[in-house]
Amino acid sequence: MEITSEIKKTREIIKQAKAAGKTIGLVPTMGALHEGHLSLIRICRQKCDFVIVSIFVNPTQFGPAEDLAKYPRPFEWDCRLCRDNGVDLVFAPAAEEMYPQKQIIWVDVETLGDHLCGASRPGHFRGVCTVVAKLFNIITPDIACFGQKDAQQLAIIRQMVRGLNMNLEICPCPTVREPDGLALSSRNQYLDSQQRQQALCLLQALRRAGEMVAAGQSDTQAIIAAMKEIIERQPQTRIDYISIVDNDLLQPISRLDRPALIALAVYLGPTRLIDNIIVDPANKSL
Amino acid sequence: MEITSEIKKTREIIKQAKAAGKTIGLVPTMGALHEGHLSLIRICRQKCDFVIVSIFVNPTQFGPAEDLAKYPRPFEWDCRLCRDNGVDLVFAPAAEEMYPQKQIIWVDVETLGDHLCGASRPGHFRGVCTVVAKLFNIITPDIACFGQKDAQQLAIIRQMVRGLNMNLEICPCPTVREPDGLALSSRNQYLDSQQRQQALCLLQALRRAGEMVAAGQSDTQAIIAAMKEIIERQPQTRIDYISIVDNDLLQPISRLDRPALIALAVYLGPTRLIDNIIVDPANKSL
Repeated sequence: MEITSEIKKTREIIKQAKAAGKTIGLVPTMGALHEGHLSLIRICRQKCDFVIVSIFVNPTQFGPAEDLAKYPRPFEWDCRLCRDNGVDLVFAPAAEEMYPQKQIIWVDVETLGDHLCGASRPGHFRGVCTVVAKLFNIITPDIACFGQKDAQQLAIIRQMVRGLNMNLEICPCPTVREPDGLALSSRNQYLDSQQRQQALCLLQALRRAGEMVAAGQSDTQAIIAAMKEIIERQPQTRIDYISIVDNDLLQPISRLDRPALIALAVYLGPTRLIDNIIVDPANKSL
Repeated sequence: MEITSEIKKTREIIKQAKAAGKTIGLVPTMGALHEGHLSLIRICRQKCDFVIVSIFVNPTQFGPAEDLAKYPRPFEWDCRLCRDNGVDLVFAPAAEEMYPQKQIIWVDVETLGDHLCGASRPGHFRGVCTVVAKLFNIITPDIACFGQKDAQQLAIIRQMVRGLNMNLEICPCPTVREPDGLALSSRNQYLDSQQRQQALCLLQALRRAGEMVAAGQSDTQAIIAAMKEIIERQPQTRIDYISIVDNDLLQPISRLDRPALIALAVYLGPTRLIDNIIVDPANKSL
């Protein structure tokens, strides 16, 4: 496995791999790899000949009050996990390599970025789109793997690829969970044991929503109210949003008459967790 | 020479050219080709093995009050000129092929797009950046040629390529002029004979500015005032802007202490013409 920090060197390695007829897969990450990332890497490994993991804590997607400085960066450990999972190349640039001057050009998405996670994180998805566009242009992958856990990010990246005619396939990968159901996240490590226990209410609320859909409930406000009640039973929670939206353009829907994304973001103390499920009222299973 | 209107077919042809080891050059145009475009094509022909001219009147860069509908589209003639000048492929998509659904993802540039032509054409450069990003992603050229006449567009495209790590070279090409000095433009054909004559004042003003710089004048306001006087002598002119800016980020400068772009836009009746020169006070020639 090779490790690069320079764009130029990275391009050379990829050029060689392509010249050898290999298909290129990318798993973009901010490091602090966990089983969720490893699942993306394994899926990518199955689909591509040459697997690249990018590790870059992207400053332009953090707000001024967010956790950029304290975001975990266990680089040696991340590289070991990549090596153990058959990664061919880790691309881990410094911020100065990715943003050598003040960024004045942005890729931005209308509408999709304004609500859900975008409402409490203004500019977040502009930063995500811009850095992912940069990574795609540097790495020119055939396939890039993204987790369904970050459902809004996935929807926006798909729109970006379609809207800018980027020539690659976006591969959505299922959310990986702890045995008790908590969705894996690098931010879970910020939780104390009480918060960790209370965090299970996210999936409990989503499961309740799934049951209500399966039982024929199509009023999204009724579903959201039931979810809210489950979350608010836990004293350390603060709801950022609970939303039911169409899974393409992420617009809120009032009646569940088509497949939809049920997504929520909840603070546990200072730590913000997200989770989601996709429901299809025509196919009434969670 | 091949002519395509579909993105998929275009990609296949380019893939074959690349597999044959050919370098790919792109000249993006809105058609209505004139000697200025042909000069870009010839420069591209010298630099690349496989030359593609895109012909697309991009709706997203026209304002609601602008001339999208009446923009000239002499397609057969354009194709003949391309063929005569050694073009390998003309890519001429319909608007529905480039924008199959409402565009919600945009490439946009801070600051550079707000003044000069951007001030009177809000959204123009967002449309330009977005369509050029799309064309670059479809065609994946090694080199793309742009005219120095559209100096702000050139500066913005260069920033886009740098800021999004696009892997191609932007080749700036000199402005081509009529024998009497008028910069070639598809919009020149809108001028009646009186306006055509008066349009010479754009270059006269730029030449006067060059002379003043050569004579040591470094006060940009004095230069602009002299240019303004030359333009306003012609009764059918209306000045949109006369600006002296640095040639990288296009910020206005008050003293000419480094190379700069002197640019202007002037209406002749309803027709808006632009022109520019680059001056270097250290090297006092026009």
